[in-house]
Amino acid sequence: MRAAVMRDGALVVDEVEELSPQPGQVVAEVLACGICGSDLHALHHADQLVEMSIAMAADAGPFAPAPMDASLDVVMGHEFSARVLAVGENVGNCAPGDVVVSLPIVMDAGGIHAVGYDNHYPGGYSQQLVLSDVLCTKVPNGLDPRLAALTEPMAVGLHAVNLSAVTTGHAAVVLGCGPVGLAVIAALRAMGVGTIVAGDFSPTRRELAARMGATEVVDPRDESAVRAWRRVDGSRPLVIFEAVGNPGMIESAVLEAPRGAQILVVGVCMVADTFRPMIAVGKELNLQFAFGYDPMEFVDTLGRIAEGTYDVEPMITAEVPLDGVADAFTALADPDAHAKILVIPN
Amino acid sequence: MRAAVMRDGALVVDEVEELSPQPGQVVAEVLACGICGSDLHALHHADQLVEMSIAMAADAGPFAPAPMDASLDVVMGHEFSARVLAVGENVGNCAPGDVVVSLPIVMDAGGIHAVGYDNHYPGGYSQQLVLSDVLCTKVPNGLDPRLAALTEPMAVGLHAVNLSAVTTGHAAVVLGCGPVGLAVIAALRAMGVGTIVAGDFSPTRRELAARMGATEVVDPRDESAVRAWRRVDGSRPLVIFEAVGNPGMIESAVLEAPRGAQILVVGVCMVADTFRPMIAVGKELNLQFAFGYDPMEFVDTLGRIAEGTYDVEPMITAEVPLDGVADAFTALADPDAHAKILVIPN
Repeated sequence: MRAAVMRDGALVVDEVEELSPQPGQVVAEVLACGICGSDLHALHHADQLVEMSIAMAADAGPFAPAPMDASLDVVMGHEFSARVLAVGENVGNCAPGDVVVSLPIVMDAGGIHAVGYDNHYPGGYSQQLVLSDVLCTKVPNGLDPRLAALTEPMAVGLHAVNLSAVTTGHAAVVLGCGPVGLAVIAALRAMGVGTIVAGDFSPTRRELAARMGATEVVDPRDESAVRAWRRVDGSRPLVIFEAVGNPGMIESAVLEAPRGAQILVVGVCMVADTFRPMIAVGKELNLQFAFGYDPMEFVDTLGRIAEGTYDVEPMITAEVPLDGVADAFTALADPDAHAKILVIPN
Repeated sequence: MRAAVMRDGALVVDEVEELSPQPGQVVAEVLACGICGSDLHALHHADQLVEMSIAMAADAGPFAPAPMDASLDVVMGHEFSARVLAVGENVGNCAPGDVVVSLPIVMDAGGIHAVGYDNHYPGGYSQQLVLSDVLCTKVPNGLDPRLAALTEPMAVGLHAVNLSAVTTGHAAVVLGCGPVGLAVIAALRAMGVGTIVAGDFSPTRRELAARMGATEVVDPRDESAVRAWRRVDGSRPLVIFEAVGNPGMIESAVLEAPRGAQILVVGVCMVADTFRPMIAVGKELNLQFAFGYDPMEFVDTLGRIAEGTYDVEPMITAEVPLDGVADAFTALADPDAHAKILVIPN
């Protein structure tokens, strides 16, 4: 079968080994797979991703996936929907023909593996992948598998909101309206937060932010999102969602935050970052860092997409075949043009 | 009257203006005043303290004290006990002869002023000071005013513990056993936290940490405090109290923290600091920054000292007259020798 392979810091389409399911596993054909910002980062700075997964694994014991070796081939892609082709022994959840989504984790006798960041199991930039039967959730009848593929990134936003201090009595500011920021906005709106102020340099993304539920949208060149919150509300307790992940964003949020605010950091800054703790101390800020989601949030998110609570169709700004993955990575470097690009491998 | 005056980055004993109380104020003779690490910092980097108070004032409106002008004289000292000498009009709380402690704030028709960081009102490195009648709390009969002077720094530790997520089901690690770290340890012990692991390079401070209630005390050169926690407990949810305030401490705590831990930052790092957000994201850490205390915590702390819940006597490692303040500042630069030095101005 064919896949877009990360090899020596480049993406090349190549033939890769055919898959067969072990006990408890299924083999599925990929219907759609979103390109994630982490994949863009991994292509050029895989070492940083590896360092992060080692830190994450510190207290997880056998429940942490082994980090990938970026000097060997990796097929990335962890935001997928897929149709089951073949099932292994002891499979009771899935049957051939089922359209499913899954946590990007696959188990075997050797432990657990991160689908999309593993040397053995391919991710969704491939015609097929291997999934763990028990981790698959069937996509409800009638839901477009392209939309189901957004379950994973949308779950990241739901988790960030769930982990934050935000209630309907709060106001929220969202810094950055890429897919993660948009997912946060959708979760805030679904919760019923009345004031959601979003900031992004890209007009395309600002328009998406308003569609997803932001009540005030600003270009940070004209007015910072926190300043805009002071203009439209300024009184309710505030949670600032940092969904950019560039160096300097935390310092900027700390400087602008009102006393006692929470800054929920869901943007992943992969390099060392600098801020002034004394400002955070003086204002008694709270920085909560968020990563991923739990299995219930993942399933909850699929339900929200299926029921139309989240209208994710506008987030899909392009679809490409396997041959177009490398160019899509390049295109995503320009945030003006895109939110989520889907890979359609078959 | 005489005072140790901060002037051009030095401490000089000089005659300063006699005080008289305005309505609602009292004039009191200083019985004892502790030297705080912030004062050491202010002597050489007053600009950073000013910047911090401006940041703190951002959302406080008229309830924030105006920052001092370090190019003019300042009499520092905000950890004091004092005996009331004279009362102004409309004073109903204090009477001459009362021994009191007070929040280091004094009000007048012009607003509120930070006692110890103000150009007009002197702090406790002075023979006398002006206090707001309503902010004074009488020291219970029989309590040594030297011990009462530790109310302020001990309240900082109580507040940090109250603001943290710590419960009796948690374990705690305390990084740094200066006065703030010791105050945190005392508050944790009073709460009933069963595992309190403390780390400090100074043998004197480690001994004090054990006296205040630390259950395990380590020299970070031999074993980090978080590593020691893994050895003696390693399973309960953890709150790490960062009470050092040097650059690099947050990065170090982030690197060592177990997944989901809270880092309560009560040490004030006055310069820009660097850490890797991706590690904090991967472990979903929470950084809560703490500053000061509220009036109830202040009064609560005085009661704890009076009742013997906090045995603060061992924390007092020296007492000096006004003439000895400059040398005491120098001596405190060597943490091996001292915890709290009291100034006895009269």
